[in-house]
Amino acid sequence: MEKVKPRTLSGFMELLPARQTQMERIMEILRRTYSLYGFTPLDTPVIESAEVLLAKGGGETEKQIYRFTKGDSDLALRFDLTVPLAKYIAQNYGQLVFPFRRYQIGKVYRGERAQRGRFREFYQADIDIIGDGELDIINEAEIPSIIYKTFNALGLKRFVIRVNNRKVLNGLFEVLGLKDKATDVMHIIDKLDKIGKDKVLACLTDDLGVPGETGEKLMTVLESNDPIAALEPYVGVSGVFDEGLDELKTVAGHLEGFGIPAENFKIDLTIARGLDYYTGTVYETTMLDHPEIGSVCSGGRYDDLAEYYTDKKLPGVGISIGLTRLFFVLEDQGYLNDELLSAPADALILPMTDDMAQAVELATYLRDRGIRTQLHCEKKKFKAKMNYANKLKIPFVIFIGEDEIAGHKASVKNMTTGEQQLLTYEEAAAVIGTGIGALNSGTVINDR
Amino acid sequence: MEKVKPRTLSGFMELLPARQTQMERIMEILRRTYSLYGFTPLDTPVIESAEVLLAKGGGETEKQIYRFTKGDSDLALRFDLTVPLAKYIAQNYGQLVFPFRRYQIGKVYRGERAQRGRFREFYQADIDIIGDGELDIINEAEIPSIIYKTFNALGLKRFVIRVNNRKVLNGLFEVLGLKDKATDVMHIIDKLDKIGKDKVLACLTDDLGVPGETGEKLMTVLESNDPIAALEPYVGVSGVFDEGLDELKTVAGHLEGFGIPAENFKIDLTIARGLDYYTGTVYETTMLDHPEIGSVCSGGRYDDLAEYYTDKKLPGVGISIGLTRLFFVLEDQGYLNDELLSAPADALILPMTDDMAQAVELATYLRDRGIRTQLHCEKKKFKAKMNYANKLKIPFVIFIGEDEIAGHKASVKNMTTGEQQLLTYEEAAAVIGTGIGALNSGTVINDR
Repeated sequence: MEKVKPRTLSGFMELLPARQTQMERIMEILRRTYSLYGFTPLDTPVIESAEVLLAKGGGETEKQIYRFTKGDSDLALRFDLTVPLAKYIAQNYGQLVFPFRRYQIGKVYRGERAQRGRFREFYQADIDIIGDGELDIINEAEIPSIIYKTFNALGLKRFVIRVNNRKVLNGLFEVLGLKDKATDVMHIIDKLDKIGKDKVLACLTDDLGVPGETGEKLMTVLESNDPIAALEPYVGVSGVFDEGLDELKTVAGHLEGFGIPAENFKIDLTIARGLDYYTGTVYETTMLDHPEIGSVCSGGRYDDLAEYYTDKKLPGVGISIGLTRLFFVLEDQGYLNDELLSAPADALILPMTDDMAQAVELATYLRDRGIRTQLHCEKKKFKAKMNYANKLKIPFVIFIGEDEIAGHKASVKNMTTGEQQLLTYEEAAAVIGTGIGALNSGTVINDR
Repeated sequence: MEKVKPRTLSGFMELLPARQTQMERIMEILRRTYSLYGFTPLDTPVIESAEVLLAKGGGETEKQIYRFTKGDSDLALRFDLTVPLAKYIAQNYGQLVFPFRRYQIGKVYRGERAQRGRFREFYQADIDIIGDGELDIINEAEIPSIIYKTFNALGLKRFVIRVNNRKVLNGLFEVLGLKDKATDVMHIIDKLDKIGKDKVLACLTDDLGVPGETGEKLMTVLESNDPIAALEPYVGVSGVFDEGLDELKTVAGHLEGFGIPAENFKIDLTIARGLDYYTGTVYETTMLDHPEIGSVCSGGRYDDLAEYYTDKKLPGVGISIGLTRLFFVLEDQGYLNDELLSAPADALILPMTDDMAQAVELATYLRDRGIRTQLHCEKKKFKAKMNYANKLKIPFVIFIGEDEIAGHKASVKNMTTGEQQLLTYEEAAAVIGTGIGALNSGTVINDR
């Protein structure tokens, strides 16, 4: 028979088993952490009507979209989880209760040019809190806590959640007489990390005609080590500015209460997260040792989630983790904890005689006690079976031979220490349970 | 602004939050049960090259497939999880260890004609065990145990796992001189449930010219209450038959060892699961009170998983649960346990003053102890906030007013009993923990 070459499309992540197990651990931690904050899980279709999905239209995204027809239907694959959320809420408005808090972890599709570390199919892990008409600032204050707890649960230590407020930024431009140039100023400030203060000042003056003194004032505030104090002198001129500063203070003021260590949080007046969508607090999360990766968890406050579908005003705040890219980076940079158990089983039972009965019985006994157990009854040599356990890093191998059958016991070998013990079923379950407890006790990210 | 009507495509399941929470519970139980049997999770792309996905070609499936081009690429959405598994194993053969046991729970796509209870996007939850060259019969014996434990963990009680062996069936036809007519005979037998014994016999005689006596013999075996005993007299004539009968006895013989109650298992010589693919044991699972639904978990032994991609012989055994359809049926037939906690949070904190500090502190305290906690700080009336808790069925509401702040305590209201207590943080966590433990203790399926 002519064979077709098996291959996976470029830009599509497909992991080997041990890696996939690490990915599953991460997803499980995200689900658990998001749930702790009262978010309900949603699952929307991957395929939507193109008309619905592209209601907003235009932009970079539309070029990347997977769009096709099936019968008479003009269809598209979702390119994010926000548009499907907007559709869902507009469609089910009467059956939902607000503020509506949902998380969704799902695959999205963008036909980007393939390059290393960029994916065409990738997981996003989103949370959003949507208000009906209004939404209290406390929700914006709570988001950094969710980011912190999530990354902390994963085991990441050296990261900082950077927070800004768009009203502060827009208000400051207003106060400094830069309102008309706000967009262009923002574009230049956005390059601060890359080109440095002097070049930003030069650009402001040369390209936009901003007076040198104004530029200096702006830079002094943006680069201040105590941004709130640096902003205070400008209070009382712009309503937007004052409101934004109050919000920023509220967010910063609840840090301790929400359990966020000071070293994992920073007010950073230079981040903006795009120019249109966000209207209040914005968030970025950067790995201290890998700033080149950019933000691994971003989002912000927006005023109108579903304006393309409904007249209802639905303000919200949300964040998104680009999970597939994050996983790629973590693997690439050696952050994944390979000491953590990633074997498909905790125990492998090897029957040493033709009588399988006791091996089957023991497998059932262990599984009933939560121990992931595999029987290996293939007609292979002993060495090949031990090799199987070694390659898969299965931590315990159990031999059931004539002696074990005669005494209704199990010989349990700890594959790490090499120690082998003849045990009752109960003792075996206890020994294995303790052993795997230790092997599961680390975090999935190893951030030394 | 002109609005686009928000809608979800026909044939695509999109659940409201409480229902989705039940679906998540089911998926979590499937992951856990599959893991207990030593299956490793995999996640393959939704999109594959059409050439790869359709390597087998032809058939009903190809008409239903979602196929489209993006740039120069001829792409298709996966229509099952077996073809991607075959591709994965052929592609990663050198890096896998056999027998390879994987589970995958993922969405697949078939553009079927839309009708009630049929879905175009639906979850399959598959497990497969793949051998390299050969695979021991014990694996086929283990599968009913996995089916039993899975449905048992979900809470289903009145179901039966029906097992047959294709070698027995083919061998029996051979012994009875029906080998040339095997396919046609099988088609008629397949209707036994619907048309009854007499009509089957008539069809065998009238349509296929099977002698009446042979037909009677066949039906006596197929309908026997003790199939193994009814098959014994035919031993010694056909090698295939004898092998199949041995296999069937091995599968049945390990029932007790694998922990399967007799009432949940049945040898049923009339099931075949299609004519081509399966070569040994085959499985169906039916709900006793809803036979009209058909099998909710099916599969079998096959000889060659990846023949379109590789010369390696890869025999396997697997089963699949059509999860989306199963969920639809469970909801439709009133099987979902709505008593089980499906609220997005265990506790809702209502600050009764403008000082949010203690509410935030308590939320952090409870979350750190695994209690899913939501703050409700919106500017709404008290009644509206209680209504929010009621509608979402949040089991505990916590008030933080002036008295609570003064005493650094929390007033915890049990929304089921109406009882309200002034408690320390520690007591509050204990009371809520106990309460939600009870609310989480049932099974997701209520099978009375």
